[in-house]
Amino acid sequence: MDILGSLEETNYADIKSFFDSAPILKNAAEINRQLQEFLARNFSSSSNNQGLRKVACVTSGGTTVPLEQQCVRYIDNFASGHRGAAATEYFLKAGFSVVFLHRRGTCQPYCQSLPYDQLLECFEVDGDSNVRVNPTYAKTIDKAVSANCTAINQGTLLKIPFTTIFEYLQILQLIALSLRRFGPRALFFLAAAVSDFYVPPGSMAVHKIQSRSGPLDLRLVEVPKMLSILRKEWAPLAFCISFKLETDTKILLEKAGMALEKYDMHMVVANELSSYKERVIIVTKNGNINVSRDMARPDADVEDPLIELVVEKYLAYASSTS
Amino acid sequence: MDILGSLEETNYADIKSFFDSAPILKNAAEINRQLQEFLARNFSSSSNNQGLRKVACVTSGGTTVPLEQQCVRYIDNFASGHRGAAATEYFLKAGFSVVFLHRRGTCQPYCQSLPYDQLLECFEVDGDSNVRVNPTYAKTIDKAVSANCTAINQGTLLKIPFTTIFEYLQILQLIALSLRRFGPRALFFLAAAVSDFYVPPGSMAVHKIQSRSGPLDLRLVEVPKMLSILRKEWAPLAFCISFKLETDTKILLEKAGMALEKYDMHMVVANELSSYKERVIIVTKNGNINVSRDMARPDADVEDPLIELVVEKYLAYASSTS
Repeated sequence: MDILGSLEETNYADIKSFFDSAPILKNAAEINRQLQEFLARNFSSSSNNQGLRKVACVTSGGTTVPLEQQCVRYIDNFASGHRGAAATEYFLKAGFSVVFLHRRGTCQPYCQSLPYDQLLECFEVDGDSNVRVNPTYAKTIDKAVSANCTAINQGTLLKIPFTTIFEYLQILQLIALSLRRFGPRALFFLAAAVSDFYVPPGSMAVHKIQSRSGPLDLRLVEVPKMLSILRKEWAPLAFCISFKLETDTKILLEKAGMALEKYDMHMVVANELSSYKERVIIVTKNGNINVSRDMARPDADVEDPLIELVVEKYLAYASSTS
Repeated sequence: MDILGSLEETNYADIKSFFDSAPILKNAAEINRQLQEFLARNFSSSSNNQGLRKVACVTSGGTTVPLEQQCVRYIDNFASGHRGAAATEYFLKAGFSVVFLHRRGTCQPYCQSLPYDQLLECFEVDGDSNVRVNPTYAKTIDKAVSANCTAINQGTLLKIPFTTIFEYLQILQLIALSLRRFGPRALFFLAAAVSDFYVPPGSMAVHKIQSRSGPLDLRLVEVPKMLSILRKEWAPLAFCISFKLETDTKILLEKAGMALEKYDMHMVVANELSSYKERVIIVTKNGNINVSRDMARPDADVEDPLIELVVEKYLAYASSTS
């Protein structure tokens, strides 16, 4: 695909209409302030002024599509946020500063091994009525708390939450425009499950849709794909990894290959719903790479070798482009 | 409405068709085992054999409606689960044994004051590299852990999770049939936000619905209302409280009143999306009662006076019916 051909593919009119109709992002100024402070802290001339300055935006969790303006019902995408949370840990370990753009309430970095649904079991009351950490979880919590404290103290992790598709895409744009100045040293790891369809606010019911008046017919329109505008306008030099999740193996690789070309991604991570925690296939212009978790270790995850490989390709790209 | 008229209103054919087409509840036997064990522990002849035996089923959180058989997308209902979790605490405090039927991942009893999104902040590492409870949260955690330990040790709380509308209604039926033998001493506090519409599994897409083929048209059909069959068949003598949430004040009380009569509820709690944490209106056959949280105390919740009132009416009902 040549550049002109691909430029013509970008749906600028649809993108403009999406942003024009989206509910206003109320905390845009505050998010921008946090971003600038985070970037200044991590990349001012006095800090980190030697070597490669590595910055990643990791997106995580599913976006919601409200069905009503005063929203009671919404369409959601399956996404626990484990992939994004684990990737964030490995990027931090690899020396990146990370903006973690995540769905509110989904899995947070360093929290994956904690019993999330049974939070109170992490604690117990001792003989003197003092609360202490439950010895069963002490080691797990110890590891998680130490790693989290390090990231917090070093100031290398910025967490920004979203809920709706409107918030997600508006915040992603803010982040991309902020990271643009890092050129090829900015990395986007777009693991969030972004809605494909939405109800334009103009055609949305104002109040809760009433039942008892027969079946409910919903017409959802396509969310314009933002990957090409991210690549062409928002942060043209950044290293971009997107994801393709399917339940049907037969179409997975074909669709991942199409996304790679159409949106000019550097990598597309293809994963199946039934095995996404075990293995993925990285689709690149130079061929596909299978990545599996280390089956010999029960606690090994697929994000460990995945991020190792991503960082390797990113370093080669950043060095050759800088 | 006379009894025959109301019997005719029960949509038995729709209910049968819903259960026949629902995906099979895989852990039904295990849930039944837990229920029987819980009831035997709490209400065997040797325990609690004096006075009124009080048992409540509290439902909490929203049900999901899958849009695909191998589900990537689903419709969800707004529901944090705070109401159900808080109600469970107050029912336990009032001496009830409680079955807490809750949406996976939503708010749990005694966890409401904890920083859920920032779990790791509850802990810190001290000078000797030991993990300990963060003093900022010590008092909150202390209170929560103690109360939770008491409920666990006394065995008065049984937690059962659900995700989909299919799981929810099938489990509710199991619970209702188990509590039936307690007659008027069983109480149902139905705070879960149950989907009004669903996609019947027979007409559901098998794989993830593909985008790029234009708008998505969805036809959702009504979920048959199960309140009347709960009242008439599953647990006819139980004291039943249902909820009505609306965003439009004008129709709220009218709809709550209709539900009270149509489903023969003992109480319907009417609440508005914008103020449900501040106040509710209890609609009964003897008139409406306004309930508000104590505004003088910032940490006071509306569930405190609400459950007090519910228990008062329940006691009067159980005594008069037994």
